[in-house]
Amino acid sequence: MLFGACYYPEHWEQERWETDARLMKEAGFNVVRLAEFAWIRMEPEEGRYEFEWLDQAIALFGHYDIQVILGTPTAGPPKWLMDKHPDMYQQDYQGHVRGFGTRRHYCANNLNYQGYTNKIVTRMAEQYREHPNVIGWQIDNELGAIDTARCYCGNCRLAFIAWLQQRYGSLEQLNEEWGTIFSSQSYTSWEQLHLPAYSVHQGHNPGLALDFRRFSSDSVVKYQQLQLDILRSLCPSTQPITTNMMGSFNDLDYYDLAAPLDIVSLDIYPIMKRVPEERAFRTGLNHDTMRGLKGQNFWVLEHQSGAPCTYAMSSTPRPGELRRWTYQSIARGADAIVYFRWRTLTYALEEFWHGILQHHGEPGRRFEEVKQVGQELRAISPLLAGTTVKAKVAMLKCFHNEWAFELQPHASGYEYKEHQAQYYRYFHERNIQVDIISPDASFDGYELLIIPNLMMAREEATKRIHAFTERGGTIVMDFRAGAKEWNNRMLPQRLPGLYADLLGISIDDYGIIEEDLSIGLLESEAEAAAASDSAAYPGEAATWYDVIELKGAEPLLLFANDYFAGQPAVTRNRYGQGTAYYLATELDPASLHGLFQSICADLNLEPVLPGLPSGVEAICRMREEGEQRSEVIFVINHSRVDAAFTLDRSYADAMTGTEISGVVVLEPNGVLVLCSTG
Amino acid sequence: MLFGACYYPEHWEQERWETDARLMKEAGFNVVRLAEFAWIRMEPEEGRYEFEWLDQAIALFGHYDIQVILGTPTAGPPKWLMDKHPDMYQQDYQGHVRGFGTRRHYCANNLNYQGYTNKIVTRMAEQYREHPNVIGWQIDNELGAIDTARCYCGNCRLAFIAWLQQRYGSLEQLNEEWGTIFSSQSYTSWEQLHLPAYSVHQGHNPGLALDFRRFSSDSVVKYQQLQLDILRSLCPSTQPITTNMMGSFNDLDYYDLAAPLDIVSLDIYPIMKRVPEERAFRTGLNHDTMRGLKGQNFWVLEHQSGAPCTYAMSSTPRPGELRRWTYQSIARGADAIVYFRWRTLTYALEEFWHGILQHHGEPGRRFEEVKQVGQELRAISPLLAGTTVKAKVAMLKCFHNEWAFELQPHASGYEYKEHQAQYYRYFHERNIQVDIISPDASFDGYELLIIPNLMMAREEATKRIHAFTERGGTIVMDFRAGAKEWNNRMLPQRLPGLYADLLGISIDDYGIIEEDLSIGLLESEAEAAAASDSAAYPGEAATWYDVIELKGAEPLLLFANDYFAGQPAVTRNRYGQGTAYYLATELDPASLHGLFQSICADLNLEPVLPGLPSGVEAICRMREEGEQRSEVIFVINHSRVDAAFTLDRSYADAMTGTEISGVVVLEPNGVLVLCSTG
Amino acid sequence: MLFGACYYPEHWEQERWETDARLMKEAGFNVVRLAEFAWIRMEPEEGRYEFEWLDQAIALFGHYDIQVILGTPTAGPPKWLMDKHPDMYQQDYQGHVRGFGTRRHYCANNLNYQGYTNKIVTRMAEQYREHPNVIGWQIDNELGAIDTARCYCGNCRLAFIAWLQQRYGSLEQLNEEWGTIFSSQSYTSWEQLHLPAYSVHQGHNPGLALDFRRFSSDSVVKYQQLQLDILRSLCPSTQPITTNMMGSFNDLDYYDLAAPLDIVSLDIYPIMKRVPEERAFRTGLNHDTMRGLKGQNFWVLEHQSGAPCTYAMSSTPRPGELRRWTYQSIARGADAIVYFRWRTLTYALEEFWHGILQHHGEPGRRFEEVKQVGQELRAISPLLAGTTVKAKVAMLKCFHNEWAFELQPHASGYEYKEHQAQYYRYFHERNIQVDIISPDASFDGYELLIIPNLMMAREEATKRIHAFTERGGTIVMDFRAGAKEWNNRMLPQRLPGLYADLLGISIDDYGIIEEDLSIGLLESEAEAAAASDSAAYPGEAATWYDVIELKGAEPLLLFANDYFAGQPAVTRNRYGQGTAYYLATELDPASLHGLFQSICADLNLEPVLPGLPSGVEAICRMREEGEQRSEVIFVINHSRVDAAFTLDRSYADAMTGTEISGVVVLEPNGVLVLCSTG
Repeated sequence: MLFGACYYPEHWEQERWETDARLMKEAGFNVVRLAEFAWIRMEPEEGRYEFEWLDQAIALFGHYDIQVILGTPTAGPPKWLMDKHPDMYQQDYQGHVRGFGTRRHYCANNLNYQGYTNKIVTRMAEQYREHPNVIGWQIDNELGAIDTARCYCGNCRLAFIAWLQQRYGSLEQLNEEWGTIFSSQSYTSWEQLHLPAYSVHQGHNPGLALDFRRFSSDSVVKYQQLQLDILRSLCPSTQPITTNMMGSFNDLDYYDLAAPLDIVSLDIYPIMKRVPEERAFRTGLNHDTMRGLKGQNFWVLEHQSGAPCTYAMSSTPRPGELRRWTYQSIARGADAIVYFRWRTLTYALEEFWHGILQHHGEPGRRFEEVKQVGQELRAISPLLAGTTVKAKVAMLKCFHNEWAFELQPHASGYEYKEHQAQYYRYFHERNIQVDIISPDASFDGYELLIIPNLMMAREEATKRIHAFTERGGTIVMDFRAGAKEWNNRMLPQRLPGLYADLLGISIDDYGIIEEDLSIGLLESEAEAAAASDSAAYPGEAATWYDVIELKGAEPLLLFANDYFAGQPAVTRNRYGQGTAYYLATELDPASLHGLFQSICADLNLEPVLPGLPSGVEAICRMREEGEQRSEVIFVINHSRVDAAFTLDRSYADAMTGTEISGVVVLEPNGVLVLCSTG
Repeated sequence: MLFGACYYPEHWEQERWETDARLMKEAGFNVVRLAEFAWIRMEPEEGRYEFEWLDQAIALFGHYDIQVILGTPTAGPPKWLMDKHPDMYQQDYQGHVRGFGTRRHYCANNLNYQGYTNKIVTRMAEQYREHPNVIGWQIDNELGAIDTARCYCGNCRLAFIAWLQQRYGSLEQLNEEWGTIFSSQSYTSWEQLHLPAYSVHQGHNPGLALDFRRFSSDSVVKYQQLQLDILRSLCPSTQPITTNMMGSFNDLDYYDLAAPLDIVSLDIYPIMKRVPEERAFRTGLNHDTMRGLKGQNFWVLEHQSGAPCTYAMSSTPRPGELRRWTYQSIARGADAIVYFRWRTLTYALEEFWHGILQHHGEPGRRFEEVKQVGQELRAISPLLAGTTVKAKVAMLKCFHNEWAFELQPHASGYEYKEHQAQYYRYFHERNIQVDIISPDASFDGYELLIIPNLMMAREEATKRIHAFTERGGTIVMDFRAGAKEWNNRMLPQRLPGLYADLLGISIDDYGIIEEDLSIGLLESEAEAAAASDSAAYPGEAATWYDVIELKGAEPLLLFANDYFAGQPAVTRNRYGQGTAYYLATELDPASLHGLFQSICADLNLEPVLPGLPSGVEAICRMREEGEQRSEVIFVINHSRVDAAFTLDRSYADAMTGTEISGVVVLEPNGVLVLCSTG
Repeated sequence: MLFGACYYPEHWEQERWETDARLMKEAGFNVVRLAEFAWIRMEPEEGRYEFEWLDQAIALFGHYDIQVILGTPTAGPPKWLMDKHPDMYQQDYQGHVRGFGTRRHYCANNLNYQGYTNKIVTRMAEQYREHPNVIGWQIDNELGAIDTARCYCGNCRLAFIAWLQQRYGSLEQLNEEWGTIFSSQSYTSWEQLHLPAYSVHQGHNPGLALDFRRFSSDSVVKYQQLQLDILRSLCPSTQPITTNMMGSFNDLDYYDLAAPLDIVSLDIYPIMKRVPEERAFRTGLNHDTMRGLKGQNFWVLEHQSGAPCTYAMSSTPRPGELRRWTYQSIARGADAIVYFRWRTLTYALEEFWHGILQHHGEPGRRFEEVKQVGQELRAISPLLAGTTVKAKVAMLKCFHNEWAFELQPHASGYEYKEHQAQYYRYFHERNIQVDIISPDASFDGYELLIIPNLMMAREEATKRIHAFTERGGTIVMDFRAGAKEWNNRMLPQRLPGLYADLLGISIDDYGIIEEDLSIGLLESEAEAAAASDSAAYPGEAATWYDVIELKGAEPLLLFANDYFAGQPAVTRNRYGQGTAYYLATELDPASLHGLFQSICADLNLEPVLPGLPSGVEAICRMREEGEQRSEVIFVINHSRVDAAFTLDRSYADAMTGTEISGVVVLEPNGVLVLCSTG
């Protein structure tokens, strides 16, 4: 288990370094992340490289048994470099150059920038590839962040045209797939192609718009590959390569970004957003999303350690909160916890972005809390080796669908991401573990697949969803399933398109449910017949309705009013050995939970621990070696009151080593780590 | 009666065309609109024209007795054309070029674009002027739509200067009329003139700002004339020429746009906006506005046929709704109903803009409903020949005043258009027919003129308003009447300026009524004396108050509080044989309706049918030939409940041919068509 | 006492001038402001000057004993001038040129514009420096207004670099002070320096951002100095020089702008903002702010005289309101009242900005009210000679802190300015006089200093605050005190930094209080112990909390809940002979008033008049000559009801000359002026 902080030796006087290293050692740290953003210190002028300061820092930390993850500094190109090639700046959709400011002002497709990247990364790799204290590499920093995934410069236009040529082969094919005949938009030469930039009505062909998202993601992935190739060719495999990602961030296809990496990393700030009651499930979702990128454990390379702030500050973590969130990260698969940042900087844009130490640099409340975690991890870490989270439920997440919904949200304000989150919430609140995976990932080992808004899918994924169900799996699909082709056109078939047989339904009519429209849900036709428009219904439908004709499926819930009263809102179909559910609308929480409860009961999907009070999260990391199965169960009280519950059996308390069973009372922010081997 | 749909053969494989034509025939269609936006198919590269596909489509429809209205394709210039002359793109007020995207990316003042327009329109006209199955022309599509009426390119600046030279004759005159001496803005050479573009505080002289609106409208009208001239010179008068307009759209002066056309057309999507209860009167107003443009019946060239959507979808029409709205259009003067669109497109920006058929192309619920209308029209159409709506009430609508209020709304959020709509609503709810006409139109035949916010008027209109009243007419004017000159300056006289004698009042003091200010209305001074500030008053004033000195008029309502308590809020003046009302404020609905009720009673203004329940609309189309008077009365139930009412006498039911009298019960969405001849 | 209006002879036909002068004379006017914005009339083409019209206007007013303040016309450069040097236009942060429109379209750093300024000001000065009827000069108009203080043109970039070179001496020093090492932003040559313009994330180093504000303010101050130098060198000291400022406007450092002027002027529109109940204290604060700029009386060169309007109108002043606000201005130190404007203009952008006369130009309600003031001033004016407002309380206002909070508001939506206003409100509502002064002003004569949010201060100010307290003064400081250095970096010390000894506290932990978080306040630890989370507390904390460790101070209020429950929210420390209070949070009004009441009681700070009802304002202007002390007390009823109160002793009524004592009843809008000599 790696445990440490982000540290920027270049921000502090060298005399201070040793104090910091000593305090880190005291806190139980064994790793620091260094050098990201330090380009100006490594190459203060073109071609003149300075690594002595970094050599000294690494050596100092080595002296204190603290290892180093190095970041390449490409998120912070110096002004001397940008001034030399102003074409490296990004441009926005109106053509404004996005000048020097925060960071990340570079266009990933710029050849000049790629050249400079090559030089600095090569020099760093040459310098540290054999350093025994350097244990890994982080590429750039938060690729795509702060709205830098999409650039509208002329260079990007040319790269986009090349990308389109590659994708479509011929202009005829592109015109056909996008449907450019609409409004005479057909292109008659490749030179006519353009980015979806500022235009009348700001309206662009959905094919063009989605492809530009794909191209932009691909461009960043390709830029990452440039660095990966250098590091791979020069560095040993004992220095794994990662980049730090951002949970629900979606300007990049994180599956593509993760694929070539050795390990995924996450930056996580659980207390940054408001609505404290929702933090646990939203942060849980972010972790599970990261674990699902490669189906492996991950690192946390920036873990919140204080109140973040660029302009207006977020909450200061209350006593016990940093520890609580740290354990959530570990429980959900983190094999490294690196806090951001060690000490609050006294200047520049993040002067209010609080670290473990305050500006004054003396140990305080947050230091003591982190130190406690460090001590606890001495006992816990060994138990975690080789463990990860195993789930019987998977939810599919597809960036292409997410982008398509952002481009055309269907119902005003509708968000694919939020819709997914509400499905996830059910399982999180009941401590049933869920993997978040790509439609292209393996479905082996799962019993239940939640497949929200699968408007488009690659052919292979569609086949595998069918096969999964046929072989006995249970799936949940919902509205807009099968509505589109991969090129963002509508399927010219009756809905749900390719899933008609699987779901046993046919849909000819549909529409949105406006916010001021109240559409009830009922369980039977008898209820529907008795209901009048003014009645209060047990459930409520939102966002969308399909008018379903049953083609073998059975209805579970019915719409209660409007012209589709009595028509099915939820159906179930037996397909092969399996079962396929379809939700024709967005269910209110109670109806959704009722449905999921019944599905979980059918499948015997059990929580990690039974009988936990509301607000208490339980996650299990496990390892199976032959017959041998080791479990480490984390129980975390996110609520503001003492939580009492009865353990189902006897466990070892990993922090104390003692046996524990029967009634346990966990205080707010309390964390219990249970072991069992069997 | 023309009945059909918009069809885009270029969007579908040719094998499908015949299926579509056959289904249309089945639905009772006799017309399609073709070719608008199809430039790229007609001229795939410069100078190479291809009409075979269109010839074939027209021939096919001819085979099924379906005639054709052709649209010129200039709303969709192809990319090859825009790339050749990038100066044709519009520019926004900050100088950004509005690039290729949706459509309408052209500047109407661009000579290059006018040249290409000339060529394509001429070629089309030559191709189809003698075609017996082509029965009309639509110029461009929704001129001015999606914010394209105003362009800020350099070419427009030069055109604007020429327009100003024409208007003002000399720079001295311009400086004088605009009052440029303010803040040293005087121009000393014509070259100094500029558009009201991006500037400090984004503040521009009101004369400049209003003239730019006028110039922009004139530019589009002139661009339409270019096409009109070609079509008129080449095509026979059996091919009438129109363009499709958009109800309450106001970036163009629709009176100017309509004047040279043979017939006005309307695009109408009644269910696109929310607030279902308001749709009937707002859509009614849009139809009446179109009928008033030329004082003639009109075509509907795009009638809603499904849920519209570019990014987020609007409501899907409920069963019976398409039929209901279709009859409202016909009742209010439509001689053509052309649905937009036949089949929902499976690609491009309008892939969610639903047509009669869903994406899959098979007949469904909406097809059956449209087909029912088609069957009904066989009986009704002949009765409608030569009929139109006749009203005794007219409301004046003036784009110049509307623009002036948009530029300076007086009270924050105030809208001329909405103010008008609330006046209209009274008459609509009571089924008293109203014409919406220009101040420059004839007032003959009217008994009551509603004249909202007539801040400025041409001299001739002012004279005719006086004459109308003097000869016995009744007028209703309100606040800001007579406040400005045509050049958007304030009149340097005591209010209501030129209308002082007509209205019998004088105004020296006035102000806005802020939203958090409560100003009551009372009927007599006695009430006013008794009232205290905290009392609840029978009526409430909003937006504006004038402090009126009576100069012959009598007070009808008084303000109840504030420093103008006891002063008149509504006055009546006898002028010649007529009566002139003045409203010094915006009345609450109850007060307004009380006032209008009394006026209607005085004038014996009757509803089309007496005793209709709320939500039931009745409109009469009539024809008078000598002594003979034929009436077709449409009764439409917009409410959600059965509507029971008693007919005043016996009618023929136009759909069934049977006699009908006594109590009638009309179900929701129900339509009754009554005939009477006498 | 100067009393008059802004007049624009160039806006009206010359035949009208005499009518206006005569009416002004009738109203008791003795001054007009002329010629600002009249550049085009004084120099209709380059180098051709015309002053006859102005000579005649000045002579005419002289004939009516009305003197003249002349404005230089540089806020309104003519189009011929701007066209000649388009580089004079400002640019916005995205590089858009802000073209010709309202006014103020010039860049203050532009050498061409400075050259033209030089010529026109010199010519005016030469023309009128010896004119006996010209009694003063106003430079430009509302410098910095309508967002013109900051320009992003290339010329400004060069000027900024020069400013930075001057400030920091070396690039090393700049890099060090800003902390540019963060994200590799270090500059390696001066040419690399840039403005905080459009960039990724629009994030800029706080040092850069604050320095750009300072530079921008300095640029305008320097531009004013250019005009000052000309006027000073050519004109006699009998023509004092001023510029008109705007109360709470903060794009410029008004202390710097005021310093070189002979007298400060204010433009004040009390009825322009909504919330009538707050107008009195907010307008009072604006006046006191102006008086504090130089510690002297000031002129009002634009005083509201009607409803203002550019696009949407504000309230029309009710009868008595103009008089009421006029007396507030006089009471708080105005030695001139010049109404804006004499007559409402009938054209151009301010055609709805109402003056004393309506558009029609005949005397009406507002004229009569102003005339009444004119008559009253004949009696009052002589009493005011040499008097000013004297306060024992001062509140420090620092533009640099205000800017720093705008750049980083700490808590979302927090405003330094509004925080100050709430402190001021306590004293205003109790009629305890307050000066608003710079931290660099003298503290002599004050007993209480309110020092809000003093995040940064110059070293000298910090010393003087200590010295003031040590010598027996009382100070009130609050959260963020001492947190930053003057270069906008955080102090690398424990809070409150340099004020730790003074305040007797130490702070290690802090955070924001989100709007949905309820943090109570209590008076004792016993209360805190008894309280539970759900309890209602007597007080409530907002915005911010510091967790205070007492180092000699005593606690006055405690936080009631959250993890810092029982910790001090307000402390008091004895320091030398004085007392230092610290507020660790934003107190609810009741708690704040309780605290201030206790402080005022301790210091025997008395209201101007005791026992006044709510909504009644009393201000005292006084003069001391040796032992002799003359007081003129203004009592103003801002409430909507009659206000009854008992005078503490006998006074002379300045308007009537009679003696007045005992119970007085003042009607709404009523003003009483009391004299006492002793």
